[in-house]
Amino acid sequence: MNHIPKSHPRAKSLYIREKLVDAFDAGLVAKEGLMAHGRGEAFDYLIGEKTSKSAKKAILAAAFMLKNAQNPVISVNGNMAGLCPKEIILLAKAAGAKIEVNLFYATNSRRQKIYSALKKNGAGKIYGMDKKNSTKLSGLDSARRIVDRDGIYSADVVVVPLEDGDRTLALKKAGKKVITFDLNPMSRTAETADITIVDNVVRAINHLIKSCKNPRQVKFDNKKNLALAIKEIKTNLTKRASHA
Amino acid sequence: MNHIPKSHPRAKSLYIREKLVDAFDAGLVAKEGLMAHGRGEAFDYLIGEKTSKSAKKAILAAAFMLKNAQNPVISVNGNMAGLCPKEIILLAKAAGAKIEVNLFYATNSRRQKIYSALKKNGAGKIYGMDKKNSTKLSGLDSARRIVDRDGIYSADVVVVPLEDGDRTLALKKAGKKVITFDLNPMSRTAETADITIVDNVVRAINHLIKSCKNPRQVKFDNKKNLALAIKEIKTNLTKRASHA
Repeated sequence: MNHIPKSHPRAKSLYIREKLVDAFDAGLVAKEGLMAHGRGEAFDYLIGEKTSKSAKKAILAAAFMLKNAQNPVISVNGNMAGLCPKEIILLAKAAGAKIEVNLFYATNSRRQKIYSALKKNGAGKIYGMDKKNSTKLSGLDSARRIVDRDGIYSADVVVVPLEDGDRTLALKKAGKKVITFDLNPMSRTAETADITIVDNVVRAINHLIKSCKNPRQVKFDNKKNLALAIKEIKTNLTKRASHA
Repeated sequence: MNHIPKSHPRAKSLYIREKLVDAFDAGLVAKEGLMAHGRGEAFDYLIGEKTSKSAKKAILAAAFMLKNAQNPVISVNGNMAGLCPKEIILLAKAAGAKIEVNLFYATNSRRQKIYSALKKNGAGKIYGMDKKNSTKLSGLDSARRIVDRDGIYSADVVVVPLEDGDRTLALKKAGKKVITFDLNPMSRTAETADITIVDNVVRAINHLIKSCKNPRQVKFDNKKNLALAIKEIKTNLTKRASHA
């Protein structure tokens, strides 16, 4: 933290960055996760580092879908566990959802450290930890599709924050409803999911927890909402361009 | 590399990412450098992962400025040394410029490793290595402004690829002409520099080397060119939005 002068105009963003670096040092976050965070920072910058109108709408729709699910599961990776471990648990409680550790760059060490971080923050049962209970999502063949038989495999709704496009597609092919947080409204994940929340998960997750406590049905079309998110970025670019 | 399926639509970008991870493992790149790379990836995606019209114009202007400089210096950080060590040396030769290692998150170990990587790729004298020859840019007080007395300190033109806004400002205050590579046309660095090349340095540096061998004067206004770069992003967003 001592690298960052308080006067730096990007100090807030730099502090979150350092939080992720701490989680990396603690073994929760993969190197590739640091880069993924950087991509997120860039898109967050473009959406104005606030929860937009389109994101708020997606959050309402996501809360309603979660509260009406039979077996919702929140998929947790290293970045999520590093940035908002408490909020994951609050969301699981508010949504009545299971928590499953599910990693792109998977190692047992990282899995265990994420597990410990969640437990330390008060998590109940955590899925995705017992190899004997793991299986693969059908239709696709890769280690990355390994899921827990009693978690994502049997879920009807899966929350996949900060997700890879391939796996989102695999979840859809397996018949799941997918809710994602993705700061890039043009990513395959964004386009493949049923509900895409184009927002920084650190901000959006609090809104989602709140909405889960008071869910209400909203008319929602993900494609139209993504188009709106892109339009919001374009509007921000126009504003910023006037300073260039 | 074995993580990345060849069929992955972002395979090319993922390979460059892994190259940087290798440089990180070798001790050249800082953790914060991995995140900075991620931000670059996002903006590269938005400019369409190609050298745009505005970037080509900035490259021409930069080549002319470099070839007409008295004492041009290329500032090299870990990401640069990890991604294009050979090209840095080719650019220094084509432009008649010195090379100086100048780090945001500075450690002696990283400095030495960057030095070795450049030397291994055929670099001549490298500035910024001898503490006894270091000094601070006037007007600003931070370890990050430490520069070589015979390098950046006495330069008239400095190439600062992948730079921090504060330091760009410090260079300007010290009376330098600044050429930067920055994928974010709205960053302080982009706005502060005399010439901002809004392009992936991995692509742009080859164009700049070529232009240095055949420099020609062009009419160039950095503010106008940045506005054009933002317009290019907006056009790409419109194209992509049609798929959303």
